[in-house]
Amino acid sequence: MELKVQPIDIKVGKYKIILNSIDAKELGVYEGDRVRVTGHVTVTAIVDFTEDMISPGMIGLYHEVKEQLQREWTEIVEIEPAEKPKSARLIRKNMDGEKLVQEEIYGLVKDIVEENLSEIELAAFLTSTYINDMTDDETEWLTRAMIDTGEKLEFAKGPIMDKHSIGGVPGNKISLLVVPIVAANGLLIPKTSSRAITGAGGTSDLMEVLAPVEFSASQVKEMTEKVGGVLVWGGATNIAPADDKLIKVEYPLSIDPHCQLLASIMAKKGAVGADNVVIDIPTGPGTKIANVQEGRKLARDLINLGERLGMNVDCALTYGASPIGRTVGPALEVREALKVLETGEGPNSLIEKSMVLAGMLLEMGGVAARGQGNELAMETLKNGKALAKFREIIEVQGGNPDVTYKDITAGEHTAEITAPANGYVLEFKNKRVVQIARLAGAPNDKGAGVLIHKKQGEPVKKGEPVLTIHAEKKNKLETALRNAQRDSPIVVEGMLLERVQSFKEV
Amino acid sequence: MELKVQPIDIKVGKYKIILNSIDAKELGVYEGDRVRVTGHVTVTAIVDFTEDMISPGMIGLYHEVKEQLQREWTEIVEIEPAEKPKSARLIRKNMDGEKLVQEEIYGLVKDIVEENLSEIELAAFLTSTYINDMTDDETEWLTRAMIDTGEKLEFAKGPIMDKHSIGGVPGNKISLLVVPIVAANGLLIPKTSSRAITGAGGTSDLMEVLAPVEFSASQVKEMTEKVGGVLVWGGATNIAPADDKLIKVEYPLSIDPHCQLLASIMAKKGAVGADNVVIDIPTGPGTKIANVQEGRKLARDLINLGERLGMNVDCALTYGASPIGRTVGPALEVREALKVLETGEGPNSLIEKSMVLAGMLLEMGGVAARGQGNELAMETLKNGKALAKFREIIEVQGGNPDVTYKDITAGEHTAEITAPANGYVLEFKNKRVVQIARLAGAPNDKGAGVLIHKKQGEPVKKGEPVLTIHAEKKNKLETALRNAQRDSPIVVEGMLLERVQSFKEV
Repeated sequence: MELKVQPIDIKVGKYKIILNSIDAKELGVYEGDRVRVTGHVTVTAIVDFTEDMISPGMIGLYHEVKEQLQREWTEIVEIEPAEKPKSARLIRKNMDGEKLVQEEIYGLVKDIVEENLSEIELAAFLTSTYINDMTDDETEWLTRAMIDTGEKLEFAKGPIMDKHSIGGVPGNKISLLVVPIVAANGLLIPKTSSRAITGAGGTSDLMEVLAPVEFSASQVKEMTEKVGGVLVWGGATNIAPADDKLIKVEYPLSIDPHCQLLASIMAKKGAVGADNVVIDIPTGPGTKIANVQEGRKLARDLINLGERLGMNVDCALTYGASPIGRTVGPALEVREALKVLETGEGPNSLIEKSMVLAGMLLEMGGVAARGQGNELAMETLKNGKALAKFREIIEVQGGNPDVTYKDITAGEHTAEITAPANGYVLEFKNKRVVQIARLAGAPNDKGAGVLIHKKQGEPVKKGEPVLTIHAEKKNKLETALRNAQRDSPIVVEGMLLERVQSFKEV
Repeated sequence: MELKVQPIDIKVGKYKIILNSIDAKELGVYEGDRVRVTGHVTVTAIVDFTEDMISPGMIGLYHEVKEQLQREWTEIVEIEPAEKPKSARLIRKNMDGEKLVQEEIYGLVKDIVEENLSEIELAAFLTSTYINDMTDDETEWLTRAMIDTGEKLEFAKGPIMDKHSIGGVPGNKISLLVVPIVAANGLLIPKTSSRAITGAGGTSDLMEVLAPVEFSASQVKEMTEKVGGVLVWGGATNIAPADDKLIKVEYPLSIDPHCQLLASIMAKKGAVGADNVVIDIPTGPGTKIANVQEGRKLARDLINLGERLGMNVDCALTYGASPIGRTVGPALEVREALKVLETGEGPNSLIEKSMVLAGMLLEMGGVAARGQGNELAMETLKNGKALAKFREIIEVQGGNPDVTYKDITAGEHTAEITAPANGYVLEFKNKRVVQIARLAGAPNDKGAGVLIHKKQGEPVKKGEPVLTIHAEKKNKLETALRNAQRDSPIVVEGMLLERVQSFKEV
């Protein structure tokens, strides 16, 4: 069927066209079917319908198809029904509990990366793997396919170190300490990280307070070879690009299928050529991993997948029920981390966790003997080498290497949450603190966040500040404060929680 | 956040808006999140992102939101993040294998009907119920919710009869015989049916050859009360509208979750107030139901659901491996059915199946004694009462009641598929015949289809016509013919299929 082109300059992130339903009927296609559209070149696209927007005889080409098709202008295109991509049938196989072979999984991931699958098909794939999961073989192939469909870093010398946190604990700014400590000891650590989606600040959001974080894969390699480490945003690098496309559908469904979680982490590590990886698994109420048993299972699966991919993986189950350090939100967290690097002093939870993870990497990388990593990490912090290395990293990424923690200012609009009574902080709700930081503007407003004066178990006096909310914008501060007052993120009680009296006869 | 309105006149079938990613970040929302948009009224909408199409400070309102919001023109709207509908969380519950309660299922179906769920969420729901299914209670509530969220017919007198075929067999034009036979015996049968999506003609596509089929629910009621029966398109009536919205997502995934299949059928029957229902389950290779065991299970589930809803349901497992009658495609099928009504003669498969199902309904409706329904049905056919009633139905729907089968012409462009050798039709591929009819233009071109000269098991001589393809358009005939020649829908073999020789010593 010949149709006249009508460009629609909307990016839909897919190869999509739109037909009048009269032409669609004539052609025998329905919404979600594929058609081959031929001008000077041929593009296979997903069909959308309209009753009125596109007249019969016309074809609406969304941005992506237009770009492909109209390198030379064509007024008339020929369209014909096309088969659905094979991947669409493979998704059905997973739904039916059948196993996919390596070639099938590669084809599927290729179609994901090339935007050949509709949102409906991606949602079905993720829902199906959430319920049915994948075998170890399938997960390995999925990971390899995710690595191979993106850019890869190849370093001339090794070993290449990497770390990852599966997230779920607020204030987890430890990469700002771990990366310079590891690099200061002569190891390469090309650390890519994410921006927060549901959190108050990912490592990339934090690092961006100090320097640009968007670089190509080859720039990442070059900078790492130069100074030993980087802290960049993975999303800009085209490393394991399938992951971002899956997250765009996982996010609205609030699911993170087990096999995808494993593949997502390990593909990013595999693509940077990591030899040794430490994975932080925050564990406990309010995190993603409810208890140690679950944490151990995840750790075993990650280690197993690492072995299959030729990577040494060590996992750290870490205490996740309370924030790391006393700050949540980009600028506040950077200030806290930088102060630790500059002074060697700071919150115990932050220093201890950072030294443990850095120490594991130093041992895995062979620069510290087993059991000596923690000590070497602490030494690297105390003797200022970590700070010096961090400044090199900031400089190589284009930031100001002379920055000190005193230069980092939090949002000027502040409000305090005070203790309602004398007693102890009985409960400290991680998720609520993150929510309040987000309402105050984090992670987009770098200065927004929450400063924590009292953590779980600490004694408080009535009226004493427990949290300070920082915001860059007055109206956001008000929204955050109202929200905090309506449902307090902390519970304060006296030592006596309840008096249970014995039965007394009258 | 205040934004300036930019209308985008595209119907997306959902309440959707589009934000520049800078504003979205500022607001802390991602794709798939919800926002409340307030002008003179407030609408909750799903967020899409753009980098360039909408400038910062602007909000793109797709057609549906614009319609709701702009009854009075507003230039500036206020937007704020909103919670996802509760239904989005309920979908996750089904994924996790948890049961939903009645109120939750009602809320979910309401959100489906009101277009509050994104395609991603609907795809997740259908994939999840495909894998995890629903309990009998859940399926009952799903069905009741589908009934209650649409229009319902209420007749002053009963009993109300209905029939349904789960489909999968080509040429199944029996409703054109069953409905008039049942109505001619004084019973009410307000038959709604579908148009073909993957078939060569649904009952609505067929009836449309003779009369309009798009009516409101109240017109359906009125016409049924007047002449006893109708044959209308369910899609125009707003009866169980959730079903159509689910089918739009089931179709691209090629899935039909068991609980949705049951609910879809029974909701449409419940909504027209049916007391007695016969369900035709075509069974055998090439149909939806592979064997009698599977057919019986489906029948038991339908009967059980009927009981819960207060409907008597009888199921007929019918032979589905071969087409019903000798025609496939709207005009051809109508001509064949009308000829049977006019002459009492025709293909055995068509007459026998129609009489059996009509007979079951006559018995259930109490106008024939047990075991006598078939005979009464045949009598109604032979004495011309069925034809007279069918003409009343055609007339009440606005068609020409004086039509005879000779007036119905098939597409003028024809081509024959002939037997490649002497022998027997060993295999007759239902799906291929449907595909060829569709390539020839069915169901959109009413005159397109396939006339079957030889069915499975019949003897043929080399060169003798086995099928005639009809098309309204020459190019479609050519496409269909090429396709049929490339991969024949029939296999002809001599009686001797293969000679297996004993081992002979040399």
